[in-house]
Amino acid sequence: MAKLIHMMLRVLDEERSVSFYKSVLDLDVEKRIDFDDFTLVYLKNELNDFELELTINKGNSEPYDLGTGYGHIAVVVEDLEQEHKRLQSLDIKPTDIKEFFHQQSLLAKFFFISDPDGYKIEVLQKHGRYK
Amino acid sequence: MAKLIHMMLRVLDEERSVSFYKSVLDLDVEKRIDFDDFTLVYLKNELNDFELELTINKGNSEPYDLGTGYGHIAVVVEDLEQEHKRLQSLDIKPTDIKEFFHQQSLLAKFFFISDPDGYKIEVLQKHGRYK
Repeated sequence: MAKLIHMMLRVLDEERSVSFYKSVLDLDVEKRIDFDDFTLVYLKNELNDFELELTINKGNSEPYDLGTGYGHIAVVVEDLEQEHKRLQSLDIKPTDIKEFFHQQSLLAKFFFISDPDGYKIEVLQKHGRYK
Repeated sequence: MAKLIHMMLRVLDEERSVSFYKSVLDLDVEKRIDFDDFTLVYLKNELNDFELELTINKGNSEPYDLGTGYGHIAVVVEDLEQEHKRLQSLDIKPTDIKEFFHQQSLLAKFFFISDPDGYKIEVLQKHGRYK
């Protein structure tokens, strides 16, 4: 059986992304591996055994094309309203909080933010199957 | 603190993707939620508390643009050679096994496959920090 261990995103500016993911999702640098042409940074916190791998290709300053296929990475938080306020105060510009229903019952309460390269992050209230 | 819970990919054909992720990564459908315009499918196995969310937009038959930013999702397996042979026998066409060194020591041993929509999956031998 295969275990999911990380997902990889290419980002332009290592420091900017590491700083963003620390302040926004409280992800720490678990490991940084530097090569001649690129750097790999593994981000994680204690709440899950899954990492976000950032690839920084040295010498590239052209924004990546984010396409239409990849959607987002999702996180849950204990208190969505509080987190929304906190991110507003950090000037992260979260979208409005939205409630999403399925067959008349609340499925999800969430907002979206974008990371420095434009990748979408869904922030969900811990609720139902999102936990 | 925010907990990573899933990542979302848009796929064209629900049955094709669900079948692929079951046979290749042994991910099961944990939940399927059907809406008028789209379907959400959450895939998972017992080895990690992280899900792959598939979005199927009904009526869309145009392949998604995968862009240049999103890289891949990574998994570890116990026996890479055996997994490579198994996937070849399923006609999944894995790339050759590659060893990747950093400062003269083996960092990773892996191959890549593509899912039915072209998203890359890195299959790593359980080794070192990849576990």
